[in-house]
Amino acid sequence: MLELRLVQGSLLKKVLEAIRELVNDANFDCSATGFSLQAMDSSHVALVALLLRSEGFEHYRCDRNLSMGMNLNNMAKMLRCAGNDDIITIKADDGSDTVTFMFESPNQDKIADFEMKLMDIDSEHLGIPDAEYHAIVRMPSAEFARICKDLSSIGDTVVISVTKEGVKFSTAGDIGTANIVCRQNKTVDKPEEATVIEMQEPVSLTFALRYMNSFTKATPLSETVTISLSSELPVVVEYKIADMGYIRFYLAPKIEEGEEDMKP
Amino acid sequence: MLELRLVQGSLLKKVLEAIRELVNDANFDCSATGFSLQAMDSSHVALVALLLRSEGFEHYRCDRNLSMGMNLNNMAKMLRCAGNDDIITIKADDGSDTVTFMFESPNQDKIADFEMKLMDIDSEHLGIPDAEYHAIVRMPSAEFARICKDLSSIGDTVVISVTKEGVKFSTAGDIGTANIVCRQNKTVDKPEEATVIEMQEPVSLTFALRYMNSFTKATPLSETVTISLSSELPVVVEYKIADMGYIRFYLAPKIEEGEEDMKP
Amino acid sequence: MLELRLVQGSLLKKVLEAIRELVNDANFDCSATGFSLQAMDSSHVALVALLLRSEGFEHYRCDRNLSMGMNLNNMAKMLRCAGNDDIITIKADDGSDTVTFMFESPNQDKIADFEMKLMDIDSEHLGIPDAEYHAIVRMPSAEFARICKDLSSIGDTVVISVTKEGVKFSTAGDIGTANIVCRQNKTVDKPEEATVIEMQEPVSLTFALRYMNSFTKATPLSETVTISLSSELPVVVEYKIADMGYIRFYLAPKIEEGEEDMKP
Repeated sequence: MLELRLVQGSLLKKVLEAIRELVNDANFDCSATGFSLQAMDSSHVALVALLLRSEGFEHYRCDRNLSMGMNLNNMAKMLRCAGNDDIITIKADDGSDTVTFMFESPNQDKIADFEMKLMDIDSEHLGIPDAEYHAIVRMPSAEFARICKDLSSIGDTVVISVTKEGVKFSTAGDIGTANIVCRQNKTVDKPEEATVIEMQEPVSLTFALRYMNSFTKATPLSETVTISLSSELPVVVEYKIADMGYIRFYLAPKIEEGEEDMKP
Repeated sequence: MLELRLVQGSLLKKVLEAIRELVNDANFDCSATGFSLQAMDSSHVALVALLLRSEGFEHYRCDRNLSMGMNLNNMAKMLRCAGNDDIITIKADDGSDTVTFMFESPNQDKIADFEMKLMDIDSEHLGIPDAEYHAIVRMPSAEFARICKDLSSIGDTVVISVTKEGVKFSTAGDIGTANIVCRQNKTVDKPEEATVIEMQEPVSLTFALRYMNSFTKATPLSETVTISLSSELPVVVEYKIADMGYIRFYLAPKIEEGEEDMKP
Repeated sequence: MLELRLVQGSLLKKVLEAIRELVNDANFDCSATGFSLQAMDSSHVALVALLLRSEGFEHYRCDRNLSMGMNLNNMAKMLRCAGNDDIITIKADDGSDTVTFMFESPNQDKIADFEMKLMDIDSEHLGIPDAEYHAIVRMPSAEFARICKDLSSIGDTVVISVTKEGVKFSTAGDIGTANIVCRQNKTVDKPEEATVIEMQEPVSLTFALRYMNSFTKATPLSETVTISLSSELPVVVEYKIADMGYIRFYLAPKIEEGEEDMKP
């Protein structure tokens, strides 16, 4: 039996909005450790990994490991029916082919049960080894989202170049070119407004803006985003979920001829 | 001659927005009692009844009973040109084939006259007898609107079931099922936030969500909605209009085979 | 070399939004006097004239007169990437076929360079002689925008009639007629809320609402609009740009048969 109670239910709503543009169907894996998901996007170019640790739930009961295949758009439809202040409980019986989302209003006057059919989804879990990155940029997530959106009005790809002084986002298209430089800045009033660069060596990599823009759907989950870059590895765009875990997006850089890697 | 002056003109704008989705053309009936309308929706399934009592107007002159056929979309186009703080006056000369809406800004600096052609509309006035209902639910109108909208993302019909403890709204569709229970709750800070149930006997009836969603366009008119249910009668969804009257929507329950009643 | 630095960069964004609906491609003319533009709309019915005087810029360097042909939609795409608090600098080298827009965030943490290709655009500069107008109406720009929008839901043209007492906007269409009268009113709390009429002789002229609605895209630039009317001249709809200049729109009145003038 599975019963996961999350007082801050709006967080689960935001998680779904963050990944449903990228992934249609996916298995949610429940274990004693937490509630997690790993899935390739439908074109098999980007990978998303979600972890919500069991300690972050008010109540977390998971008698045995369970993998539940869900259509994320249908799940999002149901979660959108939860109020932003509602407590959300995810429930499933062992062997059942349905999952129930229960929404309780803060004053307990309104209680909703949404029951959704589960799906069988083939998936292979990729082991993602810990890696050393050439450069790690932490910056305000809203700033990163704004930059990706702005550059999309000019071009299709972004070159991210990191030096000690700052990170540069560049694009080019039919109507012209654009360069946006964010300087390292640790002396800000609020730590979440800082732009902090940890660099082993300079790096300059090209990515499809379309995917970057999809990743930024996770912006409401965290005030900061961390971008980890290395010339031989997919970039990791990570949004921390306070006290609970993270959403990480992986995307291979575009190589010379504009080919995308990381396909199976 | 007809001259009806309504200081709170925004109320008339809200009335039009509440009914124009359901009804295209209708006769407004003016008498010494008030300004009223009764009309079937275009598919002849739902009935809407509006009453604005003469006492609610700042000035009310109606020399003889008058029935004015109007296209509600055109009327709404004109009323949308009134500012939210404007005073609205409805004027018509005896025997004229036009009606004039006059909008005065609060400081009288701006005065607008909109003259609209009237239409000949056949209509029969249904007598709606007072009835005893098995259950009457009063609840916050925004809550009811939210529930109808949420359930529409899952299914096409809603089962409304009333017991002493609360009212349950249920639906089912391809992606799963949903149940939302609102408990009776009279101990709230503001009386308009209460959910109050008067029940003679339990009742459980099925309705098309499409119509319920249309009815909730009246939500801006009142903070509460009253739903009167009886197994042999159309449901009445009523929005009171403060100090003036009401909008009432009538809809027959769906019977076993999913057939709709109340057709002519 | 050209380098124009505008601390209040949002102003340039608003200028572009004000004219890009009307004009696709246009030459911006830079001289010691200022940064200006004059262009006919694509159907050659309306004329727009912009002036941003050099004194209004924080830094203004223009070594020799320069005419830069730009696609206004592309320019607007780039300017939309500037934050509302950004400082905008327009830069061009002599003989270059590109222009650069530089956006600096207030704290200098983020610096963006957008480079746009210039175009060769044939244009003739019309001399617009100073003229005497029969009537000049100054009124809140939001009020004028609202009136043009409201009348558009009824008809296609507006008759603007000025008397000593006020200005009347009228239209007629299939569903009826509308008249909106704004009375002269100088006794207001804030001078920008006044409606002031300077009249030599009464005037009544007809204009296409479609163009009037385009002109009102400039509303965010100024709290007041000035409408100058004369029976033999195009109307001038002017939005002052504080401390810098103006946008003026010219439109010929419709004559008896509904023909438009001012075509080449």
